[in-house]
Amino acid sequence: MDHRPQPEYLETGLRPGPHAWQHAWYEVIFEAETPAGKAFDVVLLAAIVLSIAAVMLESVRSIREAWGPLLLAIEWGITLLFTAEFVARLACVARPLRYGVSFFGLVDIVSILPSYLALFLPGGQSFAIIRTLRLLRVFRVLKMGRHLSEANTLLTALRHTWPKITVFLTVIFCSIVILGTLMYLIEGRSGSGFDDIPTSVYWAIVTMTTVGYGDIAPVTPLGKFAAALIMLFGYAIIIVPTGIFSAEVMSGARSAATKCAACGQRASSADAKFCSACGAKLEERTADERR
Amino acid sequence: MDHRPQPEYLETGLRPGPHAWQHAWYEVIFEAETPAGKAFDVVLLAAIVLSIAAVMLESVRSIREAWGPLLLAIEWGITLLFTAEFVARLACVARPLRYGVSFFGLVDIVSILPSYLALFLPGGQSFAIIRTLRLLRVFRVLKMGRHLSEANTLLTALRHTWPKITVFLTVIFCSIVILGTLMYLIEGRSGSGFDDIPTSVYWAIVTMTTVGYGDIAPVTPLGKFAAALIMLFGYAIIIVPTGIFSAEVMSGARSAATKCAACGQRASSADAKFCSACGAKLEERTADERR
Amino acid sequence: MDHRPQPEYLETGLRPGPHAWQHAWYEVIFEAETPAGKAFDVVLLAAIVLSIAAVMLESVRSIREAWGPLLLAIEWGITLLFTAEFVARLACVARPLRYGVSFFGLVDIVSILPSYLALFLPGGQSFAIIRTLRLLRVFRVLKMGRHLSEANTLLTALRHTWPKITVFLTVIFCSIVILGTLMYLIEGRSGSGFDDIPTSVYWAIVTMTTVGYGDIAPVTPLGKFAAALIMLFGYAIIIVPTGIFSAEVMSGARSAATKCAACGQRASSADAKFCSACGAKLEERTADERR
Amino acid sequence: MDHRPQPEYLETGLRPGPHAWQHAWYEVIFEAETPAGKAFDVVLLAAIVLSIAAVMLESVRSIREAWGPLLLAIEWGITLLFTAEFVARLACVARPLRYGVSFFGLVDIVSILPSYLALFLPGGQSFAIIRTLRLLRVFRVLKMGRHLSEANTLLTALRHTWPKITVFLTVIFCSIVILGTLMYLIEGRSGSGFDDIPTSVYWAIVTMTTVGYGDIAPVTPLGKFAAALIMLFGYAIIIVPTGIFSAEVMSGARSAATKCAACGQRASSADAKFCSACGAKLEERTADERR
Repeated sequence: MDHRPQPEYLETGLRPGPHAWQHAWYEVIFEAETPAGKAFDVVLLAAIVLSIAAVMLESVRSIREAWGPLLLAIEWGITLLFTAEFVARLACVARPLRYGVSFFGLVDIVSILPSYLALFLPGGQSFAIIRTLRLLRVFRVLKMGRHLSEANTLLTALRHTWPKITVFLTVIFCSIVILGTLMYLIEGRSGSGFDDIPTSVYWAIVTMTTVGYGDIAPVTPLGKFAAALIMLFGYAIIIVPTGIFSAEVMSGARSAATKCAACGQRASSADAKFCSACGAKLEERTADERR
Repeated sequence: MDHRPQPEYLETGLRPGPHAWQHAWYEVIFEAETPAGKAFDVVLLAAIVLSIAAVMLESVRSIREAWGPLLLAIEWGITLLFTAEFVARLACVARPLRYGVSFFGLVDIVSILPSYLALFLPGGQSFAIIRTLRLLRVFRVLKMGRHLSEANTLLTALRHTWPKITVFLTVIFCSIVILGTLMYLIEGRSGSGFDDIPTSVYWAIVTMTTVGYGDIAPVTPLGKFAAALIMLFGYAIIIVPTGIFSAEVMSGARSAATKCAACGQRASSADAKFCSACGAKLEERTADERR
Repeated sequence: MDHRPQPEYLETGLRPGPHAWQHAWYEVIFEAETPAGKAFDVVLLAAIVLSIAAVMLESVRSIREAWGPLLLAIEWGITLLFTAEFVARLACVARPLRYGVSFFGLVDIVSILPSYLALFLPGGQSFAIIRTLRLLRVFRVLKMGRHLSEANTLLTALRHTWPKITVFLTVIFCSIVILGTLMYLIEGRSGSGFDDIPTSVYWAIVTMTTVGYGDIAPVTPLGKFAAALIMLFGYAIIIVPTGIFSAEVMSGARSAATKCAACGQRASSADAKFCSACGAKLEERTADERR
Repeated sequence: MDHRPQPEYLETGLRPGPHAWQHAWYEVIFEAETPAGKAFDVVLLAAIVLSIAAVMLESVRSIREAWGPLLLAIEWGITLLFTAEFVARLACVARPLRYGVSFFGLVDIVSILPSYLALFLPGGQSFAIIRTLRLLRVFRVLKMGRHLSEANTLLTALRHTWPKITVFLTVIFCSIVILGTLMYLIEGRSGSGFDDIPTSVYWAIVTMTTVGYGDIAPVTPLGKFAAALIMLFGYAIIIVPTGIFSAEVMSGARSAATKCAACGQRASSADAKFCSACGAKLEERTADERR
């Protein structure tokens, strides 16, 4: 498993530094093939979950009043742990700055900065700023992203379907604007909550996505009739992106199964007969069991 | 990229007029291959979004009272811009009338007419007419349709699946009518809102599309039981059109990938071995990367 | 188009009677290939829609009071029309009884019987019986089923996926029973509407199908947590039947494209190399354009 | 049909005991190929449904008061029947203990134990314990699992797609945590119910799964705007697992259709040309009709 190519979204050009200890640390911290590396990942994952739980529970008044000191202790324990982790990551890569500005580097910084900043704010500071800062720590949940080695296939499928999904979103956007305005015309003066177009458009989104809160609902017969058409339209139109994406995943799955025996390049598509990189004839390989 | 065939839904037979300036304008206004053409599209798109935002915000009383003059200025600026655009489009095509009655020509007219009409209506006119006129401007959002060059594949897939989707819609229609009537029989006298069959049918649509406002909900045990069956039915039946459309998109995607090397005709279907136009043997080509 | 086999669900063994007029009537009434046959279908479809609209509007008190006599006239006009249609169908087929007990024969009877029965009921009869009788007429909507010539492919796909869909429905049924009971245990005494297990199960169905009326909603923290898990489960599990059905439609679509050149039998499956009926080698044909 | 391999999830290594009567009982109780075996299954299924109905109805106060003795009789009749069934199963298998600790063995125990335990609890015991015990009987519904011989294909497809579904669930989890916190920041002080982060996260789940109770709904313009984005995101993202699962079912369906004529091993994948177990050339077989 050593030489398999890194998933695309992790290819930030990170390499361990030249020293032996850097290489050893790198294996533990950035990889998950060794027992130590796996243990490191598990501890970190547990810390993330604990931290998120603490941030969430702190917002509940009754829990905050009863368990405040414990939550504070957890908070600082996790902040110190994440700080140590961040420093260790910076120490063992060849180019620390490059890691620092990468996506996961920025997530690491956002995970620890708010706690330290709150220390330096005088008590008289606006509560709103401190509160927002504290809540920023919820982005620690993004640290989980490191464990998504399967995300690559999905991102590729999404990128391929993006132009068609854009068409779909534009159609949805136009429909929502026009239907929202229409409902404002029909229901605007019935006092049923369609008070202005932005609110009507909000209702159209709530309805077309089949969420349906019911805080705003048509009351006139014509409004109900129009609403019924909008619902059927919203219910039916979800099949369009589903079909597009299904087709893409399937053709992507076949394509991924075939690799050039000569150069290791993936087949350019599911039906490719020759390698697009070196021109060698592709043998047919199959996906799951033969790996 | 000059000679690629236009997407089907834009094939309105438009050609630039004979003069050189007409050709130059046409390239900027109707095409997006040159830097000037792209800039024109971006400016227009921004104007559309700004205009829609103005129409929507104008309907909010507090914003209208505070920012009325600004909204009026934006409104007239955009109306003049769209008028100039429409005149320019008419000027540079060979057959202006043909453009004027095309789909996008009519959208252009609807985008500017309401503002001018409102000018000529005396102040004493019914507010409802003026209000409707002003709101008609929301159809400007359809001007975005020009940018949907990917829409063609989707329209083809929809056209192919239409007969089967019709079957699905008929089944849904019959189910809704019968189930709505049934619920009127069961819940009609429980005072829970199933006051007449049209309302019950409206409720059946709200339920089967899984929108579920909750403004009308069954209260009797038998009504709840029947409602539960309707929900499960509505939840399960969405798989039918999704499956149909997925299959169509996938076979469409394969079909689009293969073209005749002799005459350029698309393969009649994904499994076609010979060109349906000239009879030449089709080579297999693949979709995305080899283009 | 004369000799194409009838869709499966219409194969009730109906044949026109021996007389020439029976054959001529049969063509008009049961087929849609001649102009007269098409006109007959269109008139009938319009009558069905008008009749359903009348039944629905009659249930609205204000409309019934204002337009009662008109609705009654429409009602009797349509009843007489449908009676004439039914008699004509019986007259022109070779075995009238066989038609009378077929699905569409029974629909025809249910469409006209209630009106006649209501005539013979004395005025003092229970209003509930008359009301139910009148509403039975809504089943006239099923007369539309005759026009669903595309339904066959869908029914075949549904029949093939039925064993797997049954697994899915059993899993859903077990989940709903267990989750509903669980929520009764958690929320039963919080006064939030989970008063007994049938109600909790009803709530579980409303939630898992993502309808979400909101008439019953958890209020305790543990209840909200359990509800969130149920929602995520219901949201995720719909992918199972969708995937199954998509796969079936796709393989069905391919299979339908190949027919035996020797005997006209459809290929037994998409990959069949020999006709399952006569053993002749199957040529590959393609679906849409070559028909 | 005697020698077909058992579905995977039933492969608990059960064998009938050495005596002839054990073999005969085993055929009736564990298999469904003989008329007696089928009859046994039907009786058991009816008993399960009756039992679940009794548990559910017992929770409704009015029914419990009116029909209490009947429900108690049904309860004990079914408990004795299930006890006899469990003893018979233990008696006829070669290794009773192994059955006792298998999944269905445990379900059998849970189905009868609560009734017996309730007998031995003194009347003064906490009602909550007895109530929970009685409700545990609802797990009898799992006894239905025995009849899901088709479940195997679905479980295989789920196992194959699990890594990708995990990615999807992680993305959903992160989105819900971040969006819930965001909404708490925006709406937290508007009094619209977003009182703390756990509640906001609960709302985010209710919204993203399109359930939409409406017990908590944004009231500020910014909150409505953010909610609209969350809805569109939740509506769009369901296409991802649907596409993944559709692709898997389809490739699974093809793979399952081909078996090695030499050794009976299933083809390793849909495109396999040689048996992955014995190397014999695979003939192409087709799925449904030729079995």
